[in-house]
Amino acid sequence: MKRMKLERAFTLIEPGPVVLIATHDGKKQNIMTISWTMVVDFTPKFAITTGAWNYSYAALRKTKECTIAIPTLDLLDEVVGVGTSSGADTDKFEKFGLTPLKGKYVRSPLIKECLANIECKVIDIIKKHDIVILEGVAAYFNSHLKNKRMIHAIGDGTFVVDGQKLSRRKIMQSKFPDIL
Amino acid sequence: MKRMKLERAFTLIEPGPVVLIATHDGKKQNIMTISWTMVVDFTPKFAITTGAWNYSYAALRKTKECTIAIPTLDLLDEVVGVGTSSGADTDKFEKFGLTPLKGKYVRSPLIKECLANIECKVIDIIKKHDIVILEGVAAYFNSHLKNKRMIHAIGDGTFVVDGQKLSRRKIMQSKFPDIL
Repeated sequence: MKRMKLERAFTLIEPGPVVLIATHDGKKQNIMTISWTMVVDFTPKFAITTGAWNYSYAALRKTKECTIAIPTLDLLDEVVGVGTSSGADTDKFEKFGLTPLKGKYVRSPLIKECLANIECKVIDIIKKHDIVILEGVAAYFNSHLKNKRMIHAIGDGTFVVDGQKLSRRKIMQSKFPDIL
Repeated sequence: MKRMKLERAFTLIEPGPVVLIATHDGKKQNIMTISWTMVVDFTPKFAITTGAWNYSYAALRKTKECTIAIPTLDLLDEVVGVGTSSGADTDKFEKFGLTPLKGKYVRSPLIKECLANIECKVIDIIKKHDIVILEGVAAYFNSHLKNKRMIHAIGDGTFVVDGQKLSRRKIMQSKFPDIL
């Protein structure tokens, strides 16, 4: 898992993949699956919708940290398993054969099997709308993974996988940071 | 464009497609392209990140209304064109050959060529993070469109198109509203 430019990390979330959010509450680590996420700025900052109905929310609030891990198609069943079980009674890393890796800036683990990981600090919680604002502080990419196709949740129990890629880079040069 | 169940409208945004936001400021209609969007609840409510850097933001603030239109691959060049020009000096409906249709609850037009449209009310603006909270009030779906594949922006001028579809509905039944 190689460090990637933090300025490119928003490109992992902008296309809307289902993600895993890893936390460590001081005693134990946990993972949840969410797809209600959004980029809020390029630096990068992200918004996620979560609240007390997710067991991980308490850890997010307490530690003000998490890791966003981006799974690929090969992890679909793990993603569904993580999303349909609770950290209250399950060690999800163990149950779903996922490997926690030590992060550099947060205690929340990275997930080794994922395509990418973003270490994040919680910088704000908008309780009225159950929105948590995250700031990415380091990002990592697994460039050796053969299958890099992300999965997108429709929200009704079905998923769509990344298909064809197309470029309009020349026309859009003014719309993204120079570093890209 | 047939009315669809409002309770299903969140499934249009959850997978993270690039969307068009149509507005009408009282004098003229306009469109912007954005992909910083998120579902915030099933009813549905959505969050979008936008601010004064988008010409449409003034109309959103003033009228507290907009339409979210979901384009497919066939509209990629229109989506890029809308995203790289400004309503300040361009009638984007005319320039990009898009057809405005009258909405039922908002003055913002629907876009005929899109796969789906969601009429929305602005219910909150979180200025600190440039997040606008929308509530969907009616949704429409173009089931006769041959190509229903949505497009996802990576954020660097490239796009990925919907590929293979997969179902995990049985396992996930507890995770989505009964109506789906």
